[in-house]
Amino acid sequence: MALDAWDINIVSINKLFDNLTNEELLQEVSPNRNRGVYILGHLAAVHDRMLPLLDFGHQLYPFLNDVYLEHPDKSGLPTPTTDELREYWKTVNEKLHQHFNQLEPAEWFGRHTFISEDDFVKEPQRNKLNVVLNRTNHLASHRGQLVFLRK
Amino acid sequence: MALDAWDINIVSINKLFDNLTNEELLQEVSPNRNRGVYILGHLAAVHDRMLPLLDFGHQLYPFLNDVYLEHPDKSGLPTPTTDELREYWKTVNEKLHQHFNQLEPAEWFGRHTFISEDDFVKEPQRNKLNVVLNRTNHLASHRGQLVFLRK
Repeated sequence: MALDAWDINIVSINKLFDNLTNEELLQEVSPNRNRGVYILGHLAAVHDRMLPLLDFGHQLYPFLNDVYLEHPDKSGLPTPTTDELREYWKTVNEKLHQHFNQLEPAEWFGRHTFISEDDFVKEPQRNKLNVVLNRTNHLASHRGQLVFLRK
Repeated sequence: MALDAWDINIVSINKLFDNLTNEELLQEVSPNRNRGVYILGHLAAVHDRMLPLLDFGHQLYPFLNDVYLEHPDKSGLPTPTTDELREYWKTVNEKLHQHFNQLEPAEWFGRHTFISEDDFVKEPQRNKLNVVLNRTNHLASHRGQLVFLRK
């Protein structure tokens, strides 16, 4: 069910991204707030970091972290093009999807890599499935903002 | 974990609502979009409808449905005051919280009331826990919009 909720949210935000032109993505979602393109890069970076977090391997695009996680929008730092960001976003989610499908039910309740074995004994809810639940909410919250770019 | 995610999102949006004045809630979250106060009423109505949906009893404020579910913002229909909406929102969530705490783990996997017994056999994921997952994402998506009302 948690994975279904993830999928539904990914499909829904992808429909949004597909219907927004690169030009529309350059608009701010609300005055003086993030531009759509920054949210796209931010989501790509956050989902990319789920790969090491869930023990699925290395980040594919670690160069996104500085611009889209450490700095706010319009920082003046050089950024990939919108088409490149769209591609990263797609690739990262496909990669996650493959790993999700391969994970055994019991593995979802194993710890994620950002918590030590000792702490996990005390807080067993800090497992892989919980990462997916949290990131689904994160995704939903930015989807709620991106709808404002629709005409 | 799903209930923790619900709680975290409720606490976080309540912090937002508490820090917004009634005047700030009258602002639109983005130009020509919903006002904060409409989102508050909408969320109160959606959560109120979770009571019958989860078989916890009747809706407390069914008169919210027409204005906040059937009509868009600024419909011209008479509305409760913002203070009343804040009160409804608080009361509904307290009621849900009480029922959540009383439900046995197995009951979460029982069907919700909007699906027939026959359909539930075919789609067992349409259970009570799934309603909470979906409504948490719904909540997160509106929280993402309400942050724009912060100075």
